[in-house]
Amino acid sequence: MLGLMMDRQLTLATLARHAERNHARREVVSVTADHDRHRYTFAEALSRARRLSNVLTRLGAADDARIATMAWNDFRHLELYFGVSCSGRVLHTINPRLFAEQLSYIVNHADDEWIFFDIAFTAILEKIAPLCPRVKGYVAMTSQAHMPAHCTLPNLHCYETLLAHESDQCEWPEFDERRASSLCYTSGTTGHPKGVLYSHRSTVLHSYALALPDSANLSALDGILPVVPMFHVNAWGYPYAGMMVGAKLVFPGHRLSSPELLVDLISEEGVTIAGGVPTVWLPLLDYLRSSGRSIAPLNRTVIGGSACPLAMIEEFRDKHGVAVLHGWGMTEMSPVGVVNSPTSANICLTGEALAAQVVKQGRALPGVELKITDDDNRELPWDGESFGALKVRGPWICSEYYRLDGVSQAHGADGWFDTGDVATIDADGYVKITDRAKDVIKSGGEWISSLDLENVAMSHPAVRECAVVGMGHGKWQERPLLVVVAAQAIDKAELLNWFEGKVAKWWIPNDVLEVESLPHTATGKISKLELRRQLSAYRFPDDQA
Amino acid sequence: MLGLMMDRQLTLATLARHAERNHARREVVSVTADHDRHRYTFAEALSRARRLSNVLTRLGAADDARIATMAWNDFRHLELYFGVSCSGRVLHTINPRLFAEQLSYIVNHADDEWIFFDIAFTAILEKIAPLCPRVKGYVAMTSQAHMPAHCTLPNLHCYETLLAHESDQCEWPEFDERRASSLCYTSGTTGHPKGVLYSHRSTVLHSYALALPDSANLSALDGILPVVPMFHVNAWGYPYAGMMVGAKLVFPGHRLSSPELLVDLISEEGVTIAGGVPTVWLPLLDYLRSSGRSIAPLNRTVIGGSACPLAMIEEFRDKHGVAVLHGWGMTEMSPVGVVNSPTSANICLTGEALAAQVVKQGRALPGVELKITDDDNRELPWDGESFGALKVRGPWICSEYYRLDGVSQAHGADGWFDTGDVATIDADGYVKITDRAKDVIKSGGEWISSLDLENVAMSHPAVRECAVVGMGHGKWQERPLLVVVAAQAIDKAELLNWFEGKVAKWWIPNDVLEVESLPHTATGKISKLELRRQLSAYRFPDDQA
Repeated sequence: MLGLMMDRQLTLATLARHAERNHARREVVSVTADHDRHRYTFAEALSRARRLSNVLTRLGAADDARIATMAWNDFRHLELYFGVSCSGRVLHTINPRLFAEQLSYIVNHADDEWIFFDIAFTAILEKIAPLCPRVKGYVAMTSQAHMPAHCTLPNLHCYETLLAHESDQCEWPEFDERRASSLCYTSGTTGHPKGVLYSHRSTVLHSYALALPDSANLSALDGILPVVPMFHVNAWGYPYAGMMVGAKLVFPGHRLSSPELLVDLISEEGVTIAGGVPTVWLPLLDYLRSSGRSIAPLNRTVIGGSACPLAMIEEFRDKHGVAVLHGWGMTEMSPVGVVNSPTSANICLTGEALAAQVVKQGRALPGVELKITDDDNRELPWDGESFGALKVRGPWICSEYYRLDGVSQAHGADGWFDTGDVATIDADGYVKITDRAKDVIKSGGEWISSLDLENVAMSHPAVRECAVVGMGHGKWQERPLLVVVAAQAIDKAELLNWFEGKVAKWWIPNDVLEVESLPHTATGKISKLELRRQLSAYRFPDDQA
Repeated sequence: MLGLMMDRQLTLATLARHAERNHARREVVSVTADHDRHRYTFAEALSRARRLSNVLTRLGAADDARIATMAWNDFRHLELYFGVSCSGRVLHTINPRLFAEQLSYIVNHADDEWIFFDIAFTAILEKIAPLCPRVKGYVAMTSQAHMPAHCTLPNLHCYETLLAHESDQCEWPEFDERRASSLCYTSGTTGHPKGVLYSHRSTVLHSYALALPDSANLSALDGILPVVPMFHVNAWGYPYAGMMVGAKLVFPGHRLSSPELLVDLISEEGVTIAGGVPTVWLPLLDYLRSSGRSIAPLNRTVIGGSACPLAMIEEFRDKHGVAVLHGWGMTEMSPVGVVNSPTSANICLTGEALAAQVVKQGRALPGVELKITDDDNRELPWDGESFGALKVRGPWICSEYYRLDGVSQAHGADGWFDTGDVATIDADGYVKITDRAKDVIKSGGEWISSLDLENVAMSHPAVRECAVVGMGHGKWQERPLLVVVAAQAIDKAELLNWFEGKVAKWWIPNDVLEVESLPHTATGKISKLELRRQLSAYRFPDDQA
């Protein structure tokens, strides 16, 4: 028997209408190439989003056209978020930092009809445009006065000129909430980038869950600064959730890596919450230390993307009164899966117990189901010690990749998505990521976390940088090898002794190898793939096989 | 093009599993007839809910059986909330305060298979049981030792005994989120009660929206005291939302009208939020005044069901540091539609501007669409002055009534549900209910809000409770009559003078009538229908007709 409730669909147009009616006067503040500090209201933003929908129709964009953006965080990108998706079309946010061959691959793979871009990215697009013949045209997200000169892009339009010629009268159509709203490609280490196609339903549900008190805790009193780019999984969902609750939106534009600008925006625009990856916050904290400036309005930051170091959490908390909400998610998860917010069982922790608690990634948002499994896909207990492959399930998690040749299904036969991370989960549901699955060391059928071993090694004064990798071993299949760049003279036996009492005895690496330097990826992370290649001839001294 | 997100359904079983895994150790505290202060954990509650699902199967309940409850707020009722609905069956919560003929009508109309009841309601059920021959049996929600003696109910079982014989191993089935989860009859003033049939989807979405920071703001740090009965629209959704976020649940059982018990529970169990109708809070505030006790842990109450008087809001705020969140909704709305939480535009108001703001019912939860229309169904502006019929739309709003003969459709031809309330909406979306459509006083072709007049009267120290009703008047068609239960001696002329400057001169009631008590409905609201009946012989002194 079905319930007798209205069959209203969860769409971004409904969310936008809610904002228009209830938060018409709320502000959106942006830094752009052509505005030092642009400001207008939600009502104006959504009025222009409606104009934009009319522009797309005028340009002949299909009802379900993929419309690409290559743009920073600002008001025009926000207009595209709503103007494209509310009209039923699909917003494809492109990461301009990808290599040219990846860019042309995803534009062609997505079958993008139009590309809207910040003029800073003109040269990149000029390079790939000849490789993307099906793109119908390009729209520079600026005013006529700032249009790029001598531009070779075919069928080039000016965003402000297009908008100026349209009416803001546009009734967004009603449709199935499962309709696609936006598309984001995730670039793995191997193979082509894979497209994750969000729906209106998944985006609206993710917005509700993100705004909950135990997630980002978003209200009409907040000012949100999404430092995470709008081309990264919809800026973690902040533009949608902020619009839903009527929070002020503050966008740093192309200057998102200027700590001075971020501090200006926080102070002057009353930013209460900011979100970004740890590498954004390091220079900000440096700048605060050297300038002595304050970030008084800010009371919390959501930090994800990679594990947030304890020192950063403590500096934010103890020097600036800012609570760091550690989080974890993936492009395939819209992206937020877990956030580390307190419960009554742990809010009073102090000292080491607190430190151990805050470095956990957090507990699942309602709607996200988690499990950890062993190699035989048996579920492991939530005891904070057993660690296994972290798998997830829920209405804002990817079921298949977009138009992937061959196997497109993203989840396993059991319907769960394997995140590729290895984690423990404690009795209260807090997840701690222990490793990427491909870096876990499999010793005698048991797993060893390379991350945990690296953390112990890094706490030794003689170690400047290190990596632990699993190397083949005749008896144990794999054993951990500690590879070290020394800060001072190293005594192997003494260094291995350092692990005693800090990890299980059988986790202690079998050997230490000193190297001049470690190989790094383009983004500055240690490349374990390359390291294993370099060490292919290595044999453990104790390997009798 | 559809998005490629998992087709996970929004069901109460998913919500329950989330609670089991993430909030296993959270407490549920209850006062019951057989326990002074029963306490156990979410894990135990849901383990027993699974046993209950097995009990229902053992009893031969159909897959979509309506299972009725006639019970106060406690842990067993909570188990039924989940054990019935998660198994796919429909929880029909019956208001024991209805008249016997209404009770037998709804039991037969719903086709209830089994009725679970608190032993306090044994006599009521014994009276109606002969009229409900299709009910298969009755389950007393108590232990064997407390079973009612000499009970005439057919096929009577003991709740604890049934549970003791079942396993807690029960895989709740997966099904369409639109499946019915629970049923609540709303007793209009005329005709039979009408059934509102909630779905899993509507209940889960309502839980997300209710927990948002600008709604009830529910987190894992909260202790929730639902004073509103669990037979009233699912206790306004608190049991579901509280379970979802891991808030402690505190249930007052049959003693919900004991202010002393409520204060005990708030103080001893760390209750941070309580919800109920204004009439529960009057005796609580009286008791706090006379006893000098404090309610320190409490920081907010959500008050709805009928308009909350300004004096009550101010006493909670100024004497107890408790923010009153005014709210409004209906059985047909799951029930919450609007909550009065601040925005940055009004949070700094003081004095009269603040007073005018807090008596508004609030702004729509994201997902609830509102409009006000005139007699010709034309939409009226959101200017805070125009008032018209308040209509609503959204995924947790009733589309049709359950099995209603003739016209069952709840909404109008335009797809909007007419709430029967008359309201203004201001530019920021704040709704102010000016009256029930049927209580509006039509004087000389103009409308007068009975509610506004009641609010003014309630602010007078001599008035304990009051109602303003439109009574026939030869010259003006209708004129307002103020009916008062006095707190102290009343001077009619002085009381009428109290209205001067507070409302338009022509709104001032023509007369004051003092009564010992006012008639109330089964849900505790003043019954103006009954009051008008009692006053049928009344004539205004100035009525010359």
